[in-house]
Amino acid sequence: MMSQSDRSELMDKVVSLCKRRGFIFQDSEIYGGQNGFWDYGPLGTELKRNVRESWWHDMVSGHDPIDAPEGAPQAFQMVGVETTIIMNPQVWKCSGHYDLFVDKMVDCKEAKKRYRHDHVNGRWVTSKRKADGDAAEPKRVFVTAVGEEAEIQDRALSYFGLKKKYVDRLEWEGDIQSLTEIPVDDYSSVVGPDASEAGTLTAPRDFNLMFRTIIGALGTDDDAAFLRPETAQGIFVNFKNVVDSSRVKLPLGICQIGKSFRNEITPRNFTFRSREFEQMEIEFFCHPDQSQEWYTYWRNRRFAWYTSLGIQSENLILREHHKEELAHYSVGTADIEYAFPFLPEGDYGELEGVAHRGDFDLRSHMEGKLKATDEGTLEVELNEHGQPKYRGSGKDLTYFDDQIRERFIPHVIEPSAGADRATLAFLCEAYFEDKQPDEKGKMQSRVVMRFHPRLAPIKAAVFPLVKKDGQPEKAKEIYRALKAAGIAATYDEQAAIGRRYRRQDEIGTPWCLTVDGETLENGTVTIRDRDSLEQTRISVDDVVDEISKRLRA
Amino acid sequence: MMSQSDRSELMDKVVSLCKRRGFIFQDSEIYGGQNGFWDYGPLGTELKRNVRESWWHDMVSGHDPIDAPEGAPQAFQMVGVETTIIMNPQVWKCSGHYDLFVDKMVDCKEAKKRYRHDHVNGRWVTSKRKADGDAAEPKRVFVTAVGEEAEIQDRALSYFGLKKKYVDRLEWEGDIQSLTEIPVDDYSSVVGPDASEAGTLTAPRDFNLMFRTIIGALGTDDDAAFLRPETAQGIFVNFKNVVDSSRVKLPLGICQIGKSFRNEITPRNFTFRSREFEQMEIEFFCHPDQSQEWYTYWRNRRFAWYTSLGIQSENLILREHHKEELAHYSVGTADIEYAFPFLPEGDYGELEGVAHRGDFDLRSHMEGKLKATDEGTLEVELNEHGQPKYRGSGKDLTYFDDQIRERFIPHVIEPSAGADRATLAFLCEAYFEDKQPDEKGKMQSRVVMRFHPRLAPIKAAVFPLVKKDGQPEKAKEIYRALKAAGIAATYDEQAAIGRRYRRQDEIGTPWCLTVDGETLENGTVTIRDRDSLEQTRISVDDVVDEISKRLRA
Repeated sequence: MMSQSDRSELMDKVVSLCKRRGFIFQDSEIYGGQNGFWDYGPLGTELKRNVRESWWHDMVSGHDPIDAPEGAPQAFQMVGVETTIIMNPQVWKCSGHYDLFVDKMVDCKEAKKRYRHDHVNGRWVTSKRKADGDAAEPKRVFVTAVGEEAEIQDRALSYFGLKKKYVDRLEWEGDIQSLTEIPVDDYSSVVGPDASEAGTLTAPRDFNLMFRTIIGALGTDDDAAFLRPETAQGIFVNFKNVVDSSRVKLPLGICQIGKSFRNEITPRNFTFRSREFEQMEIEFFCHPDQSQEWYTYWRNRRFAWYTSLGIQSENLILREHHKEELAHYSVGTADIEYAFPFLPEGDYGELEGVAHRGDFDLRSHMEGKLKATDEGTLEVELNEHGQPKYRGSGKDLTYFDDQIRERFIPHVIEPSAGADRATLAFLCEAYFEDKQPDEKGKMQSRVVMRFHPRLAPIKAAVFPLVKKDGQPEKAKEIYRALKAAGIAATYDEQAAIGRRYRRQDEIGTPWCLTVDGETLENGTVTIRDRDSLEQTRISVDDVVDEISKRLRA
Repeated sequence: MMSQSDRSELMDKVVSLCKRRGFIFQDSEIYGGQNGFWDYGPLGTELKRNVRESWWHDMVSGHDPIDAPEGAPQAFQMVGVETTIIMNPQVWKCSGHYDLFVDKMVDCKEAKKRYRHDHVNGRWVTSKRKADGDAAEPKRVFVTAVGEEAEIQDRALSYFGLKKKYVDRLEWEGDIQSLTEIPVDDYSSVVGPDASEAGTLTAPRDFNLMFRTIIGALGTDDDAAFLRPETAQGIFVNFKNVVDSSRVKLPLGICQIGKSFRNEITPRNFTFRSREFEQMEIEFFCHPDQSQEWYTYWRNRRFAWYTSLGIQSENLILREHHKEELAHYSVGTADIEYAFPFLPEGDYGELEGVAHRGDFDLRSHMEGKLKATDEGTLEVELNEHGQPKYRGSGKDLTYFDDQIRERFIPHVIEPSAGADRATLAFLCEAYFEDKQPDEKGKMQSRVVMRFHPRLAPIKAAVFPLVKKDGQPEKAKEIYRALKAAGIAATYDEQAAIGRRYRRQDEIGTPWCLTVDGETLENGTVTIRDRDSLEQTRISVDDVVDEISKRLRA
C-alpha cells in the first residue's frame, strides 16, 4: 500500500519524466504556458497514437460483425465516423448543452476572483470569545476551504482578529461541507478563499462550459457557434445518414475519435482535467427491449479493455451510479475509474463513463429539447407560446427493423472514454523504480516504464555491444528488418551498454536486441526483456518473427 | 481530354457517390448543414485514416534515420508531435497571424451583404445612349462579376434602365479585372453583386480569418484566444522542448497531423475550401547553408508521394512561385497542385505548399514579430515607444551543432499538406465509369473507384457464390483469416454475385474472393482484380499471403 506522500511523489516523478523524455509538455511553454492545455512530444505522440489505434482496432477495424463476441447477446456491427468540432448551433440547443452544460460560479468582489461553486466549500467556525476579551455574542462564519488546512485556519483567525496563539478559541463545526448548504441568496456569512471579510462572494451564477466562437465575417453575437464539448452529438446527427448509406443493421455501434473542448474553470491534475482533450466514443444503437443487456455487455467489455492493456485490476473500479445520481433520462450509468496517484488513497478518477441513454438523444434531435415531466417521462420543453423552446430537426430518426417488422427509436448505450486520461493512466501505471546491478555488479537505481507492448512507443531497440568488428553493420541490418516489418524500432550505439538499456527502460521499450562477438560467429543475438531482465539468445534470422510473436501474445 | 461540362459532371458524380456510399456528408445535415463544414461517414473515415496513416508511415514511423534516402543530401531524423488547437495568443501575435492573416472585405449598404474583396471583381461598362434616347454624356460604371455572365449583363441593363433588347448598347471594357484597380476611397462608381445602384459598397476592410474564443470564466474580449489556422506554430514553439528531450540532431523534421480552422468568407468546392480542415505538416530544421538543397529535396519528395499513391502525373503540377509572389522572408515556395474537376480545364488547385521559410519562424518566437526592412532583411517590428510591437518569448531557440561547433538559428523547410484536399484528390482521381458484361453477357455500366490499394477503405471482400453447400462457412473462414492478419475485409452473401462485385467496385475494394463449388473440391477460390477484372484461382491457404503481397507491391 502506497502512502499519501508516496503517491504525490509518484505523480511528480511521472510529470517530470514526461517532460524530460518528451512525452508531454506544457502547451506554448516558451510563452509561459496555458492553464489546461498540454502538448505531446515525440514519445507521447507515439504512445497516444497507440492508445487510439488499440481502441480503434479493438472496437472498430478488428471487430467481427459475423459472430457474437464473448458475452454479447448477438453479433453486431461497428463503424466509424469523423465529424466536425464546430457544428450547427441548433445541435447544442436540442441536446441540452446550451442551457444545461454549466458550472455554477461565485465571484469575490474583494479579491476579484471567480471560483467554481462546488470547489468553494468549507466549514462553519465560531470564536468562543472575541479578541478584545469582550463577552458579546460569539460570531459564526463559514470559511471556504480552498487551500491547505493551515491557510483555512489563518483565514478564520484573521477574520476574528485573533493572533495565532489563540487558535484554540476557534470552534469548528462538522466536516468539510459544501456551500450548497447555504441558501443561494445569503452568502453574507461566507469568507471567501482570498477575502479578508465575510460577504464578498456573490450568489452562484451559471457559466456555460462550451467555448463560443462566431462563424463568418457577418456574424454577430446572436450567431454564436460552439466548440463541441463531446464527440457524441456528431454521431447522433449522422445516425440517419450512416444507416441510409452503409448497408448496416441494428444493433450498430458508431464510433468516433476526436478533440473536444470544455472551458473548465479550474483545470488541474496534469492532463486529467484539460480544456482541450480527445475522446474515444461509441454510440451503440439497439432495440429498446435489448438495451439493458447491451448496457451490461458494454460496461463489462470496456472495463476489460483497460485490464487487457495492462491496468492492474486493483487500480480500477467499476462504479455504478446510484439512482439519484442518474440523469433523468438514464436507466443506468457506470464509471470506469482509475486510482490516479494525484488523488488521496482510496479515491478514483473517471476514465470512462458507460451510460444507458434510452432514446433521449435521437428524440431530442427529432422533436427538440426534452425535459422530464413530474411522472418521470420525457417531453418536449415548450416556450411561453406553447411552441418547442428549441426546434428539433423534424427529420425521422426512427429505425425500421425488417426482421421483426417494427419501427422504433433506437435506444443508445454510450461508452465514452478519454484518450488523454487513458494515456495518463497508462503512464502512471507503467512507472516503476527498482535497483539493478550494472555491468560491474554495482546496484544502480532504475526507472522503468512497464507499458503493455501494444502501447510502448518503441517496441525494440537494437544495439551493437561495441562500435567496431562489424557489429554496427549487423545491428543496423536487424534494425532495418524490424522497420521493414512495420515494427517501431530504434538503433543506438552511443554510450556503455548498461546506459543504453536504462535509456530504453525509462521510455518503456519492451525488448532490447544486442549484437555482440558471438553474433558474427554463430548468428545469434541476445534479447533482453524489460521487466524480467532475462536475456536469451535467438537467431538473427528469427528476430522479426520473435518480436512479432511477442507483440501478439 | 475532358470537356468543361464533363468535368463539372464528374464533380457532381463524385459528390453524389460520397453521400450515397457514406464517404462524406454535409455537417449537421439534419439541421440544414453548415457552410464550410463536412463530416466523414464510415467509408470516408477509413479512407481519410488511410491517407493520414500513409503520410505518417512514409514521413515519420517508417522513416530510416540511419541512411540517407534517395536524393537526400544526408541521413536525417523525423519525429512527431501533437499540440493543441488553442494556443497562447502571443503565438499568433509573434507569428504575424494576428495582424496579417486577413481577407479584405467589402460591405454592401443596400443588400446588407459582405463580399471578399478579391471576389467582387468585374468590368467597366458604358451605355452608348441613355434609355430614353437622350444624347447626354454616357455613364461609365464598374459592374462586379459575382454570378453568371447573363446576371452581370442584367445588372448593367438594370442600372442603365435598359430593356433586354438594347443589350448591344452596352460597351464593355477589357477583361474581367479586379476591384483593386479602383482607388480604395472611391467605390462610388461600382455596382455591387446584389445592388441596384452604384456606390453602395464600402471601401475594403480587414477581417481576420482566425476563429476567436475566450478562455475561462473570467475572460473578456481582451483575453481572446484563437483556433489555430495552421498546425505549424505548434511545432515551432515546441522546437526547443523536442531537441532538449528527444536525443535528436539536425537535420530534423518535426511532423504533426491535426485540425486547423480558418473563418473563410466563401467556403466552396465541396471539401476543398472548408472552415475546419485537417493538415499534415512537416517543419524541417537544418543548417542555413544546406537549406536550399533541402528545399529541393522536399519539393521533389512530396510531389512523388502523391504519384506513389496513384495520382496520375498529368493531373499534378509543381508550380514554383515567382519571386514577386513570395512572402518577404521566403527564399522559395512551390505548390503541388491537382487538376480538381471543379476547376476549368488547365487550372489546378493547391494540395500542398512546400516553403523555404528561412529563420523567420524561430526568430519571431525568440524576438517578437518581424517585418521586412527596405533592404529586404528582417527586423523586429517596433511600436511608437520603440519597443517590440509584440514581445517574443525571449527563449533561446538557437541550435548548437557539436560536429561543426557552431551555434545558429536553424532554417526551416515546410511541406504543408491538407489531409482533406488530398482525400478529395484521391476521390476524384479514383472515379471511373465503364461498361462491363454481366453474368448474362449483357453490358452494364459500372462505377469503379480505382483507389490505390493502400488507400482503399476495404482491401478484400469475400463472397460465397451461393448461400448453401457449405460455401458461406468456407467464405467466413477466409474472411476471419484476413481480419486476423489485420487486413480490412468484408463478407457479403446478399444478392447476385455480379451485383456484389459492383458494390465493391463502387467503393474501391481492390480484390474480391469468391468461394464456389470448386472450392470445396480442390481448395481454391477465385480472386478478381477490380481494375483488370481478371479472375484467377488461388489456394485458400494462400489467400492471406497473396493479399498481403499485393498490398506491399
